[in-house]
Amino acid sequence: MQNPILNPPQKQHQHGDYSLSEVSLANRNSGTLLETLQHDITPIGAHYLLNHFDVPYVSNASDWQVTICGQVDQPLSRSLEEIIRHATQNSLARTHRVTLECAGNGRATLEPRWPSQPWQVEAVGTSDWFGMPLKYLLQETQLASSAKEVVFYGADKGVDAGTIHHFARSLSLADAMHDDVMLVWQMNDQALLPQHGFPLRLIVPGWYGMASVKWLNKIEVIDHAFTGHQQTGTYVYRKDRGDNGTPVTSIRVKSLLVPPGIPDWSSRKRLVKPGIVPLVGRAWSGNGVPIVKVEWYRDSEGSDDQWHIATLEPSKSKYAWSKWTANWHSTPGKHILSCRATDACGNTQPLTPAWDIAGFGNNAVQQVEVWCEAF
Amino acid sequence: MQNPILNPPQKQHQHGDYSLSEVSLANRNSGTLLETLQHDITPIGAHYLLNHFDVPYVSNASDWQVTICGQVDQPLSRSLEEIIRHATQNSLARTHRVTLECAGNGRATLEPRWPSQPWQVEAVGTSDWFGMPLKYLLQETQLASSAKEVVFYGADKGVDAGTIHHFARSLSLADAMHDDVMLVWQMNDQALLPQHGFPLRLIVPGWYGMASVKWLNKIEVIDHAFTGHQQTGTYVYRKDRGDNGTPVTSIRVKSLLVPPGIPDWSSRKRLVKPGIVPLVGRAWSGNGVPIVKVEWYRDSEGSDDQWHIATLEPSKSKYAWSKWTANWHSTPGKHILSCRATDACGNTQPLTPAWDIAGFGNNAVQQVEVWCEAF
Repeated sequence: MQNPILNPPQKQHQHGDYSLSEVSLANRNSGTLLETLQHDITPIGAHYLLNHFDVPYVSNASDWQVTICGQVDQPLSRSLEEIIRHATQNSLARTHRVTLECAGNGRATLEPRWPSQPWQVEAVGTSDWFGMPLKYLLQETQLASSAKEVVFYGADKGVDAGTIHHFARSLSLADAMHDDVMLVWQMNDQALLPQHGFPLRLIVPGWYGMASVKWLNKIEVIDHAFTGHQQTGTYVYRKDRGDNGTPVTSIRVKSLLVPPGIPDWSSRKRLVKPGIVPLVGRAWSGNGVPIVKVEWYRDSEGSDDQWHIATLEPSKSKYAWSKWTANWHSTPGKHILSCRATDACGNTQPLTPAWDIAGFGNNAVQQVEVWCEAF
Repeated sequence: MQNPILNPPQKQHQHGDYSLSEVSLANRNSGTLLETLQHDITPIGAHYLLNHFDVPYVSNASDWQVTICGQVDQPLSRSLEEIIRHATQNSLARTHRVTLECAGNGRATLEPRWPSQPWQVEAVGTSDWFGMPLKYLLQETQLASSAKEVVFYGADKGVDAGTIHHFARSLSLADAMHDDVMLVWQMNDQALLPQHGFPLRLIVPGWYGMASVKWLNKIEVIDHAFTGHQQTGTYVYRKDRGDNGTPVTSIRVKSLLVPPGIPDWSSRKRLVKPGIVPLVGRAWSGNGVPIVKVEWYRDSEGSDDQWHIATLEPSKSKYAWSKWTANWHSTPGKHILSCRATDACGNTQPLTPAWDIAGFGNNAVQQVEVWCEAF
């Protein structure tokens, strides 16, 4: 078969299957550049971004207030300045290295496809988040014994499915009081970027990104289950429209490889020379469960292969991805490369996506088309 | 007519016209979030990104070398460290605030559509770039009298249209020696981000972004016209395939408005309340030509309007965009908002795009769909 990278068909004006509104979302919501998986920490600005509404314009962080209300003895308001002072004076500030992934990552590869951000595999990133465990702020109030959930509101506002709302998500009281759930004001030793929640956000390690509410300005303690649109109208696993669904929570085990060799500009297919090709990638799971195995696979037309064990560097941080490496002895022709992670609970990645109507939680193995040829 | 934002149709699985490869490119190449046009300087990481190939992995900037070769008395190699020392010791370092725009911005709105990054309007951004005029590096060599063009090579390598090459672009010797063409190692008071050319890049103010070569490691002085793929195989204005084309060079006059009100998540249509709606936006042109007028227009079904003059704040920097503001008295119903800039040379924006086979230089006016309703 002729290598289509070096022998491309004449360019044609384009037709396809994706809608203009999906393309609009993809132009706004950027994915991690897969080659930056080489870095332990995703470079600033290359971390994936999924914002439902507009990024709020905040000219002065010192004015930023967070209100705690609802099932508390009395509502409390704290400025970001006060929170930072409290954290500093009481030695409560800390850094967590956390891998975040969008719950909709992989949606674009499902058929049929839900109208939303058309992620393929790139909605993942790792940062050092600096702040204070949320529980220390909650402990400044007296929670009522009826307290059941804690709702986090962002300053971002818009419409989804006809419902006007601020982005808001809840956690159970136990989850909200977990040591590792953080109020965060720095990312990689800098103030948060506007698009990543400046000046204050939540980080819920081990969960898909929707839980880590940005531009946090209101915390409401409630005595019932939160039914806001972002809690029950979306971010639920559903087989079909009639399904009430199961909440999307922690990240499913997953791995990616840095596409080897050099890319074709528009198709992103890869070209490598015959010989030893170093492979490198990352693997992660939810809830701080460690990765215990990464395998890789070469699907080459006309020849069988088996899953090969990759070399795994255990993550130094509970919630951050692990690095893996392997060497592939490439031979001329077309190959599809894949990798598969397994975590300490025995969870592993499926070869084909589990069906979900809105494309959530797709952790099927990545497939990278590579053409090997002397050049 | 019923407002489709507040009365949305039931979501359907998606069909459309765009290809998977366009969506892949859109997920990699991020546009500026239009609401960040509120900022004089585009926030770090929200500046548009168009990278043809992979971002090179550079672990150690102090190793970075630039070679000057070709029509010079003898080839010269300088480390980034030496360049910075030379700039510092001789007080040659300076900052330019520059608005960059991708030449393909607006491509996705053309019909038929070229297979490439499907930008709508968002491929623009403004940064403070810090470095040294390129001419001071060139002046460290003795250029041959035959020198005609200067070719800039990036470390990024890949394939386009079957041609393996490093990204490379040329400037005429006169353009390369222009005072304002810069060798740059900082962006907004930080080291360059990897995806923006770390550790060293070119900035050619007033030109579309393709001229500002990233990851610059080789400068070749030649005695003829450069015919590399990125110079003659693309980035040329062509009406059809038979057309030899005209090189894409400086930025065409353009303006954008920050979409007012709040967005619908997936359609990005806007919702505003009746009453005074402040409008704000940016306008820019190429080659440092100032903007002298911005107008805005409201296309409301069943009622005529005229172009209104907006309030223009002249840019304080020759190559940076100008801010404009206006007040719109909104009334219930559907509206399409547009703006139109005029520069000091009398260039203005067309209402519909000029045809170009690959969708370059589209500076037609933006159209923002806004629904006004009490809510």
